[in-house]
Amino acid sequence: MTVKFIRKSSSTVDVASNTTSETVVPKSISQMWESLSPEVRAALISSELNSIDAKTTTSTSTSTSKTPSREFSSASLSDQTSSISSSKDDDTEEPPTSYEKCPVSGATVSLTPLERAPSNVFAFTKTHLTSKRQVTKTSNATVTTTTKVVSTSRGWRNIFSLPISYDVNMVAHGTLLDPMNSQMLDATGVHPEGYNTRFAVVDVEVDRLYGEKIRSYFTVQGIELRVCLVNGGEADKRSQAVDRILDELCVYKLRRREPFLAIGGGCVLDIAGMAACLYRRGVPFVRVPTTLLAIVDASVGVKNGVDYCCAVTDETYKNRVGSFYAPSACLLDPAFIASQDERNISNGFGEILKLALVRSSDLFDLLEAHGKTLVETRFEDATLKQSGVSSRIIDLSIQIMLEELGPNLWEAKLDRCVDYGHTFSKLLEMVPGADIMHGEAVNVDGFFCVIISYLRGYVDMDTVNRVFACMKSLNLPTNSSDLKLELAWQSCKDAIEHRHGEQRIPLITEIGESICVSDITEEELERALELMKEFDH
Amino acid sequence: MTVKFIRKSSSTVDVASNTTSETVVPKSISQMWESLSPEVRAALISSELNSIDAKTTTSTSTSTSKTPSREFSSASLSDQTSSISSSKDDDTEEPPTSYEKCPVSGATVSLTPLERAPSNVFAFTKTHLTSKRQVTKTSNATVTTTTKVVSTSRGWRNIFSLPISYDVNMVAHGTLLDPMNSQMLDATGVHPEGYNTRFAVVDVEVDRLYGEKIRSYFTVQGIELRVCLVNGGEADKRSQAVDRILDELCVYKLRRREPFLAIGGGCVLDIAGMAACLYRRGVPFVRVPTTLLAIVDASVGVKNGVDYCCAVTDETYKNRVGSFYAPSACLLDPAFIASQDERNISNGFGEILKLALVRSSDLFDLLEAHGKTLVETRFEDATLKQSGVSSRIIDLSIQIMLEELGPNLWEAKLDRCVDYGHTFSKLLEMVPGADIMHGEAVNVDGFFCVIISYLRGYVDMDTVNRVFACMKSLNLPTNSSDLKLELAWQSCKDAIEHRHGEQRIPLITEIGESICVSDITEEELERALELMKEFDH
Repeated sequence: MTVKFIRKSSSTVDVASNTTSETVVPKSISQMWESLSPEVRAALISSELNSIDAKTTTSTSTSTSKTPSREFSSASLSDQTSSISSSKDDDTEEPPTSYEKCPVSGATVSLTPLERAPSNVFAFTKTHLTSKRQVTKTSNATVTTTTKVVSTSRGWRNIFSLPISYDVNMVAHGTLLDPMNSQMLDATGVHPEGYNTRFAVVDVEVDRLYGEKIRSYFTVQGIELRVCLVNGGEADKRSQAVDRILDELCVYKLRRREPFLAIGGGCVLDIAGMAACLYRRGVPFVRVPTTLLAIVDASVGVKNGVDYCCAVTDETYKNRVGSFYAPSACLLDPAFIASQDERNISNGFGEILKLALVRSSDLFDLLEAHGKTLVETRFEDATLKQSGVSSRIIDLSIQIMLEELGPNLWEAKLDRCVDYGHTFSKLLEMVPGADIMHGEAVNVDGFFCVIISYLRGYVDMDTVNRVFACMKSLNLPTNSSDLKLELAWQSCKDAIEHRHGEQRIPLITEIGESICVSDITEEELERALELMKEFDH
Repeated sequence: MTVKFIRKSSSTVDVASNTTSETVVPKSISQMWESLSPEVRAALISSELNSIDAKTTTSTSTSTSKTPSREFSSASLSDQTSSISSSKDDDTEEPPTSYEKCPVSGATVSLTPLERAPSNVFAFTKTHLTSKRQVTKTSNATVTTTTKVVSTSRGWRNIFSLPISYDVNMVAHGTLLDPMNSQMLDATGVHPEGYNTRFAVVDVEVDRLYGEKIRSYFTVQGIELRVCLVNGGEADKRSQAVDRILDELCVYKLRRREPFLAIGGGCVLDIAGMAACLYRRGVPFVRVPTTLLAIVDASVGVKNGVDYCCAVTDETYKNRVGSFYAPSACLLDPAFIASQDERNISNGFGEILKLALVRSSDLFDLLEAHGKTLVETRFEDATLKQSGVSSRIIDLSIQIMLEELGPNLWEAKLDRCVDYGHTFSKLLEMVPGADIMHGEAVNVDGFFCVIISYLRGYVDMDTVNRVFACMKSLNLPTNSSDLKLELAWQSCKDAIEHRHGEQRIPLITEIGESICVSDITEEELERALELMKEFDH
């Protein structure tokens, strides 16, 4: 909740950074300083920083009175000139005003903290110098007049920092639904004595396989579980599914801070995440992914959403509607993977291979060596389990995903290597009647991009062949009859819209390294599509 | 984006806070320290803090190699015991691990930063000591066996801080739609040369009154404006309205970082805010409130949402679905107020009076003295404009709102004085066919709460009468035929659900001061309702 960075404009950071560059410390003093023990230095720094904090607080609170708002407001808001001039005198009763220049408009902004929210709400005055050009045509000539206008505006700035924190927990293989493992119970919140109900959104398919175990996990603890079943197919990833969950949450009367469980594949987690974000403007939810794809992908980040069918264009747009909303926790039990069929496991490898291509040649090596076996044995090969290869592939995938997503959770940066394979795949998935799964589409897109890289000279044919062979060994498609020039070029246009004005398409430069490019042309796509055909035989 | 607070568990804050309480600085040293000039002290602190940062960075980067993830992962994830023991040796090649204890579960958590996201993603190992009690009944006695179990789990922690910042701009009276005022154009983003379209969600009523001016504002600048009209009535505040905007955004092809405008009353701003949050998982939007209520209420915070009709219970729940999502800016032109009718202006005063009651006796004094005139003249009384009273009432309201909301934007704290008047009003507004506006319902609720305060001895009858008179002068209802015991008691139950387990109902203790209580009884409500009747004549 604390907004540390605003300190930059107050006195604290004068000490920590600004002043330094100009102050030269005499050698004798710096030697003396070095001679002190680290503990003493730490203690001195700490007391110094505290005393600055105290000073700041004092100067603010001296002006507190029974009518603080009026006094303050009349100085800073009703009377703009006095607000500007007040900064010139050294009256300690005035709240500390800071100044900044807007890099875009060039306006000078003075910011004065509000008394009851001094660390994040500021009354401002913006002074703007604008040049207005007016072109007048007379009978003889064109006259351009430039007028400089100083305009002042006022208002308030709200600077806030929303703290997000969640744990992605690896659960010991096959123990999540064991009543002796309290993780699922612990994750659903601390409740008052006697509060004995829980709410879970469960994938229809998961319910068929594990419904009984899930219910008895809670029954054993004396807890009544209310289950809301949701279809996990891509076709059902629509707002209607979100509404079904919202309906059930209304019936259940979920409390504002009571976490609910979402157990299922990526689609169910995406739908449940959107419902969690929207119900009462946000309630906590715990993700329990039950597919390989969901374990390495949907469970790790903060995205949710559904496909949206526009009533005007009558088109359906992939993941067009949703939000960024963090789960309260994720519980990952890899034992669920064994209940998936081979195609679904290959599907999961689509996203894992993507991560290997853009970020880790180690992960690629592992996939090349063991991928085929893992698909065929559904992650249950005894030797690979014993040697830790199975869990290492999952660990590495999640770790890479978190390293990439973690510092960019809300996607402030739009050049994202994890978007590899997510440019052309969106439209491939949306082709009516297309029988292609998400990881498969990502893989087709990913191979298409390898070809583009080859044509640009970023990678050689050996690399192309190596990637192709690895994809084949994972039983992943490398082409689709729907991948045609029109779709590919439309995908580039959609990317420009979605990634704000530039394609920002990630391409690999070697296995494990990537860059983003924005200059892919239609001709280039055409040549790549031609070359793709040669791999189909 | 930087996550300052995680430093608390790394070496930096050892310096800034932890160590101090234990280290005693010899007097000679502290005197020497005091004798240094503030600039030198600042320089020393700065270089010390920098050197710690540098050390942290170095120790992390020394282990960088072509295969960083594998090396790291095998130490911290695949092999749990080595991760624990590694913290004991002083090998500088290891990433710095920090430890914490979970206050709820008592688990010991070790956190090791990930190499590519060292400031916010951590691999963790949690070690938990659980006591399991088992009760066995033999023929002779009951035997209780307590087994202590140490369990270890591992995973990753993602700690992120989402920066939020927006300006609430007071626009010079009546200039917002003047093409010479560039604020509306500036707020809709910096675009490449030749990009000449904008998107606006406009209240149907606002379009009738100002549609032509809004369109010509953009036409004059050579910009084509696409308008999506939305009904501003409470009855239309439903997901269907959000979908209409999403549809139009799909057609318009709004770019990811392109702000759209939302011009209208509170309902339209709430609907548009929800669409902005959901379209492409969030696009920027600019609020232009056109009613007194929206200027002081909906425009200031980060809430959005719609009423939700549950398909199972067939009931409609007020603001049940929505989110917290900040606007990119707000542009407030008080000139819009004059186009409202008296009832709507009184409605706005409902929220202003609420703020006065809980936070500012000054504001209350102003309302008592000038409220009636402002309602009757629709904020256009020449003397009050001249003396600045009109704008001071608006300024004070926004300022108080921001002081209360600002530090608690996402409502981490559920005891909120701004929730005054928002406990019983929700159900009052939802009574089928009820002809009551939001500010009116808030006022009825607010007066009911004054009576409750009186019965508890928090305020005297003089205060009750003073509040009552002020409400009447503002033409606001103080009672409703729908306010019956059942509705009131149900409201308390709903509050418990919404405010997580407690009523947290704000009550005033004098004009301008409030507290939150959670022990209101049904009997108390009954007595308050009885007393309310006496004021109806």
